[in-house]
Amino acid sequence: MAKIAVGTLEFPKVSDLPVEIVERKGIGHPDTICDALAEELSIALSELYRKECGAIMHHNVDKALLIGGIADPRFGGGHMVAPIEVYLTGRAINELNGKRLPVEELAIETAHRWLKENIPNIDISNHIIIHPKLKPGSKDLVELFERFQIKGEIPLANDTSFGVGYAPFNDIETIVYELEKALNSKEFKKEHPYVGEDIKIMGVRNDDYIRITIAMAFVDRYVKDVNDYMEKKEIVTNYAYSLAKKLTDRTVDIFINTADDPDNESVYITVTGTSAEAGDDGQVGRGNRVNGLITPYRPMSLEAAAGKNPVSHIGKIYNTAAMDMAERIVSEIEEIEEAYCYLVSQIGKPITEPQVCDVKLRINKDIKGIEEEVRRIAQEEIDKLPETWNKFLKRHFRLY
Amino acid sequence: MAKIAVGTLEFPKVSDLPVEIVERKGIGHPDTICDALAEELSIALSELYRKECGAIMHHNVDKALLIGGIADPRFGGGHMVAPIEVYLTGRAINELNGKRLPVEELAIETAHRWLKENIPNIDISNHIIIHPKLKPGSKDLVELFERFQIKGEIPLANDTSFGVGYAPFNDIETIVYELEKALNSKEFKKEHPYVGEDIKIMGVRNDDYIRITIAMAFVDRYVKDVNDYMEKKEIVTNYAYSLAKKLTDRTVDIFINTADDPDNESVYITVTGTSAEAGDDGQVGRGNRVNGLITPYRPMSLEAAAGKNPVSHIGKIYNTAAMDMAERIVSEIEEIEEAYCYLVSQIGKPITEPQVCDVKLRINKDIKGIEEEVRRIAQEEIDKLPETWNKFLKRHFRLY
Amino acid sequence: MAKIAVGTLEFPKVSDLPVEIVERKGIGHPDTICDALAEELSIALSELYRKECGAIMHHNVDKALLIGGIADPRFGGGHMVAPIEVYLTGRAINELNGKRLPVEELAIETAHRWLKENIPNIDISNHIIIHPKLKPGSKDLVELFERFQIKGEIPLANDTSFGVGYAPFNDIETIVYELEKALNSKEFKKEHPYVGEDIKIMGVRNDDYIRITIAMAFVDRYVKDVNDYMEKKEIVTNYAYSLAKKLTDRTVDIFINTADDPDNESVYITVTGTSAEAGDDGQVGRGNRVNGLITPYRPMSLEAAAGKNPVSHIGKIYNTAAMDMAERIVSEIEEIEEAYCYLVSQIGKPITEPQVCDVKLRINKDIKGIEEEVRRIAQEEIDKLPETWNKFLKRHFRLY
Amino acid sequence: MAKIAVGTLEFPKVSDLPVEIVERKGIGHPDTICDALAEELSIALSELYRKECGAIMHHNVDKALLIGGIADPRFGGGHMVAPIEVYLTGRAINELNGKRLPVEELAIETAHRWLKENIPNIDISNHIIIHPKLKPGSKDLVELFERFQIKGEIPLANDTSFGVGYAPFNDIETIVYELEKALNSKEFKKEHPYVGEDIKIMGVRNDDYIRITIAMAFVDRYVKDVNDYMEKKEIVTNYAYSLAKKLTDRTVDIFINTADDPDNESVYITVTGTSAEAGDDGQVGRGNRVNGLITPYRPMSLEAAAGKNPVSHIGKIYNTAAMDMAERIVSEIEEIEEAYCYLVSQIGKPITEPQVCDVKLRINKDIKGIEEEVRRIAQEEIDKLPETWNKFLKRHFRLY
Repeated sequence: MAKIAVGTLEFPKVSDLPVEIVERKGIGHPDTICDALAEELSIALSELYRKECGAIMHHNVDKALLIGGIADPRFGGGHMVAPIEVYLTGRAINELNGKRLPVEELAIETAHRWLKENIPNIDISNHIIIHPKLKPGSKDLVELFERFQIKGEIPLANDTSFGVGYAPFNDIETIVYELEKALNSKEFKKEHPYVGEDIKIMGVRNDDYIRITIAMAFVDRYVKDVNDYMEKKEIVTNYAYSLAKKLTDRTVDIFINTADDPDNESVYITVTGTSAEAGDDGQVGRGNRVNGLITPYRPMSLEAAAGKNPVSHIGKIYNTAAMDMAERIVSEIEEIEEAYCYLVSQIGKPITEPQVCDVKLRINKDIKGIEEEVRRIAQEEIDKLPETWNKFLKRHFRLY
Repeated sequence: MAKIAVGTLEFPKVSDLPVEIVERKGIGHPDTICDALAEELSIALSELYRKECGAIMHHNVDKALLIGGIADPRFGGGHMVAPIEVYLTGRAINELNGKRLPVEELAIETAHRWLKENIPNIDISNHIIIHPKLKPGSKDLVELFERFQIKGEIPLANDTSFGVGYAPFNDIETIVYELEKALNSKEFKKEHPYVGEDIKIMGVRNDDYIRITIAMAFVDRYVKDVNDYMEKKEIVTNYAYSLAKKLTDRTVDIFINTADDPDNESVYITVTGTSAEAGDDGQVGRGNRVNGLITPYRPMSLEAAAGKNPVSHIGKIYNTAAMDMAERIVSEIEEIEEAYCYLVSQIGKPITEPQVCDVKLRINKDIKGIEEEVRRIAQEEIDKLPETWNKFLKRHFRLY
Repeated sequence: MAKIAVGTLEFPKVSDLPVEIVERKGIGHPDTICDALAEELSIALSELYRKECGAIMHHNVDKALLIGGIADPRFGGGHMVAPIEVYLTGRAINELNGKRLPVEELAIETAHRWLKENIPNIDISNHIIIHPKLKPGSKDLVELFERFQIKGEIPLANDTSFGVGYAPFNDIETIVYELEKALNSKEFKKEHPYVGEDIKIMGVRNDDYIRITIAMAFVDRYVKDVNDYMEKKEIVTNYAYSLAKKLTDRTVDIFINTADDPDNESVYITVTGTSAEAGDDGQVGRGNRVNGLITPYRPMSLEAAAGKNPVSHIGKIYNTAAMDMAERIVSEIEEIEEAYCYLVSQIGKPITEPQVCDVKLRINKDIKGIEEEVRRIAQEEIDKLPETWNKFLKRHFRLY
Repeated sequence: MAKIAVGTLEFPKVSDLPVEIVERKGIGHPDTICDALAEELSIALSELYRKECGAIMHHNVDKALLIGGIADPRFGGGHMVAPIEVYLTGRAINELNGKRLPVEELAIETAHRWLKENIPNIDISNHIIIHPKLKPGSKDLVELFERFQIKGEIPLANDTSFGVGYAPFNDIETIVYELEKALNSKEFKKEHPYVGEDIKIMGVRNDDYIRITIAMAFVDRYVKDVNDYMEKKEIVTNYAYSLAKKLTDRTVDIFINTADDPDNESVYITVTGTSAEAGDDGQVGRGNRVNGLITPYRPMSLEAAAGKNPVSHIGKIYNTAAMDMAERIVSEIEEIEEAYCYLVSQIGKPITEPQVCDVKLRINKDIKGIEEEVRRIAQEEIDKLPETWNKFLKRHFRLY
């Protein structure tokens, strides 16, 4: 059994600090696209390996690069000039018993499927080129996988790594997260097809004033002219304001595309709904953390979880597990206002034996009474670590 | 007026030689795909330039490289493992008065459109990657084009170049050409969807015996098993035989996929209908000449016409013009059995002033009586040279 | 003048926590190589622009991808099988007054120069392919640059962004940082040429026990056999131990290449001194922060500073400035034990007017007496922000 | 024993025709560079396979694409702006008994070595990117090779293919060939370093007037200004004239860079000595035939021999063998003025059993007396076909 330390949080609540910054790069942001394509590829590979080999074979596809295209957006509908290019890189076993596994084709098809579903204004045949650059991993790793996947042994930590999670979201975090989800929801898009998927939301709180700045790509074919654009922007601003107001008691302001210069017809329109069409590049691991946000005032891991191996990558597993653990503790124990969980792996030991499992709580009564309950939940979550891969395959986390 | 020499052919008819070889690489052969994509891109650019600039601006897109993919064909339907890649290279003006022209997107879309139409078993989104690698040409050339295209002056030959054409096809040439056309026709495919587009036909004549060897990719999803394959091969062999017999009085044999080894289930099946899926690479200018055939016993130009500029490239224009000239002479003057036309350009002079226009005839009566008639036709064809580009845009020639 | 808040640190010292993790990816790690090549390209572009245009024109080259090669290392000297590939991506003005600037060539030459100097066992002609994939930025940005660079106005913050820095390093941080520097110093390499540049150092402290794990690529040509390897590893271990002992009073252990299995001759040797030769990929922004370390127990920015524009990128400037500010405060005011500085920009306002400048101090006497002194230093650093680019060009920071 | 037909040439001598065109693309022409890199790669692979496997394993690397760079040449020395790129494509066995063979690295190193030796003004590290795109061939072919290479059986023709050769060169052919050799010789370059390697020579004969047009890239760093250029051009013109005069009795004129416009300082200077630096693309098989020339008035094969397998590729072997056969016949039998040799393979039969070996002679006495002698030589050459690969490895032919 792991040593589980339970204590109290000694620093003030982030929402009591005078300043707070929270950001979310929406589903169509070039960095998020990279995260999504890397993670979807990992899931597709995992499924292929399970089907063809009976176990998730070694892979690590956590590096991707998106090179922006060139576009000529116009009111009423412009066109692409040069395509977006995406390099999908990493290691993936591509042969089993002399049989070649179609990992390159899988990379292309998976990317196209995700893009078609999520960024529908990209013409996947003509606007974007997917370059799969996968190399096979070493043969030793194949054996390792057979041991853990087929015989069911508990994987050993391959690194000293660190995971951190907290719960719950405070008001500004909730606003930033939910706002992007709402603006990119299928329902909203049905009514507002002019709203592209590249929506970057930055929330800054100064004491009790929350300023939400949204950079949002409009889709040109659904916008007649600059007046139409300004009207539609007004509609979205109002929608965002009423949604945000439901989530906080503080003063909120919403600003969309602050660099617009309507007098010169210089506004943020795109052919495809993403700035990737014209110059903005992207990479894996440069955007949202595993909770879906960038929160510089919270402890954050640099871990780029997307695309990493869901069975054996200790950084990917511990960060998501710490988040799950914190969320469960807060939701199951009423008295706990806030929880931070830290997990540190012990190289060479089973992943169920972290060298540190540190749970820090903010609580409005004595910690003594609930310490055991917290420890029990933490232990349960640790025991489930070898099955975490299942949650990745079901897209349980907010990896992108 | 050009000097036009008219004389008689001094060497024996090719069809009277003891040996003759004729080849055609069908529409789905990797080299032909390269020719087609290069020429279609030239046509698409020409149309774009006419629309946007009022004239066909400079371009030369006559280099392309197809890198074969990896496939796993199976009876009943296999799948691709790694995609085919095509590099489309050359020069093309990409800016006009500060406005960016979408030449890269045009290259991708044109390639996809042609492939979808002509090699329908390639999934254009997932089985093939098109890399447009076009660079702008020099600015001097822009001015040149304005002069000839807009003001209507006659282009000057930019090179000393050579074109040759002959007519008519003899029996083995006709068989090879028509057979590929028939096997790749929409009508035939409707009945025989298992016949892929990669059909390479080699005809060898020894005296009066013609041996037609066909390498033909079958499409795996339409073939149940090896017996089904052998039956279908028999059907196509019979069809080809009856077609060939209509075109010659000599003895004909048809052989399809001679390397098949049905006992070991080693036969020529493919996922996509082309060998490009698995290893065969292609280039522009390595396949059929401008008459649609490879005929080592006829005079042949090395000219790779596909993708070259249709207004100004003297090699492209003279080779196709020489073929047209020979065909017209033979079809309009009954007494003429065979015609060879040679055109040599004069660098720096208008293209309508070749330094040599040499017409050689095989004729069963005195040449004197028809010399003037031949000269008149030749001169008419020469006068039409500045309008040849129009024929390229209408796909009048058999460039692929 | 900026509002500068000065307060005291309310959370315990990191070095008093029960656990601490510190990591540094050495100069030859694939992620660090990406950071270095991106930052060196930004410096080279800045110098080119200053020379050719009189000012640092717009560029942002902060995305790079390294795709590992294939190698066949052997005791005594193996060889590369397939090259490493590096994609250098971003925006960079490539034309001035109709004159083409050689940005692609600059990218290639700069990368080669840095690699030759820093990873000398890579044969830059044959072992690595540099792909420059730069696109020009928009023309508006050109004007902007003329305004700030030529007329000397203060740049405006283009984003709400966040920078954080602290000083000084504690013992484990110093060990990790200095150890890598020492093992990769020219002096050490002269005596120990078998030590490659890919040295990843992970320090974990549990109470008063510091465990330093070093992953270090050996260069095969300088290692005779596995015994020689084990002896040399012993030498380096001893060297590292004595260096570390000078920097802390705690117990230290050094472990190098813990996965070695000498009985099976499976040890960590490479042809080039970096794992990039065989499978490890890299990206910008995935490694060390701007202080040269990864410190999950300290506040960290996700900002990938390498390759960003040194004049206008607020994230790059604020993070490095916050670090400089903290270091100056600690070094100039004796009573201050530790300082954390936070800077938050105000979009649309001059970069010298942050919305937040928060300085938190750990101090062993009353803060009142030194508040003014701290504020003065902070203000001086803020006033110098428009000149920060100069420090980047001089490689003042530890960006890689 | 093969059937060898011996007969007389029935068409007039090419040098008696009123017009003749002969061309050679020099060593630095983009198409020749592609031929050279493909053939050198085939030689390097053959040597690697002989060393590692004891036999020349399967490979076919006859497709290559050169994409021109961007350059900024200046009198006194300009610089490259964007690099040349070369894709080397094809099949090559890359594994033997589980051991990875370094075919990609070999492709890069071989290309660099050839370029360094032959186009010395290209900086191989920075001016050119080599992309090896080799895929392994099928496993069946491996077995095939063991049979022929190790057990010494005679290879079977894998195709019905055609080879043709003739001898000797006439005057204009000799001039064109020798002139390029002389201008690109080490001796000439030592005195005239300003002469680049991209020298395209076109000879056109009208009756007894030979016009030699030379397109020759000057190297900018060796040319001070436009006057210096014109003087140096004059020197080369004179040198070429005196060399040509020694090789013919006809009238000769030499023209170099006819498009020069010295009044506008528009002359043909380059940084690297090849037009590949700025826009001209290249491919394998688009330049010189296996005799080193392009001769539209002679029978020519379309065969692109460079890069093809030297052991088994029937087109490569028969074309070069036919040329050798013709040369030997002409040189060994005094009475023979001219010889054309034709070889046609018989699919599935040993390569030493062509279905046609046709030798046509131009002779000033009765053929009867020498027929046996000709037949004997031809048979000897046919018997040596299985050893032709040796000649390729020794660069015996003029493949580039």
